[in-house]
Amino acid sequence: METTFVSILGFAAAFCTTVSFIPQALRVIKTKHTKDLSLAMYSMFNIGILMWLIYGVLIDAWPVIIANVITLGLTLIILVLKIKYK
Amino acid sequence: METTFVSILGFAAAFCTTVSFIPQALRVIKTKHTKDLSLAMYSMFNIGILMWLIYGVLIDAWPVIIANVITLGLTLIILVLKIKYK
Repeated sequence: METTFVSILGFAAAFCTTVSFIPQALRVIKTKHTKDLSLAMYSMFNIGILMWLIYGVLIDAWPVIIANVITLGLTLIILVLKIKYK
Repeated sequence: METTFVSILGFAAAFCTTVSFIPQALRVIKTKHTKDLSLAMYSMFNIGILMWLIYGVLIDAWPVIIANVITLGLTLIILVLKIKYK
């Protein structure tokens, strides 16, 4: 399978899983309702994304670094607001 | 940086971001409350995870395949219940 197609698929996958957190972050900021969100999920998820970020730095993979910096920013907002509004 | 440390970090990151959806899926199954979850997020996220799965198959990377099959299973449950319970 041509590498360009595979790389485009990788970028598209990273794009979707990264920007998908924008609507959830906006919803939480707007409604201040976080009861149905799992604190355990966003705590673990943030730890995992932080690890992916360090992983990206260690293997010098800019797509991994950029995607996970954006995701971490969004999921940290959701985690902080979840803790604030319970 | 030693490759074993970097691979372990990658597996640990994949493990955290994958199992983090278990508490959210269990919460939704138990409470049937999904109002605060963003439908747009879980729709886009599922598309992204499906792309990561295809990407993993194309590059023949078993860790990527396994992590994303599990994640897709969990996030599809959350998406279906979000659609069902609004």
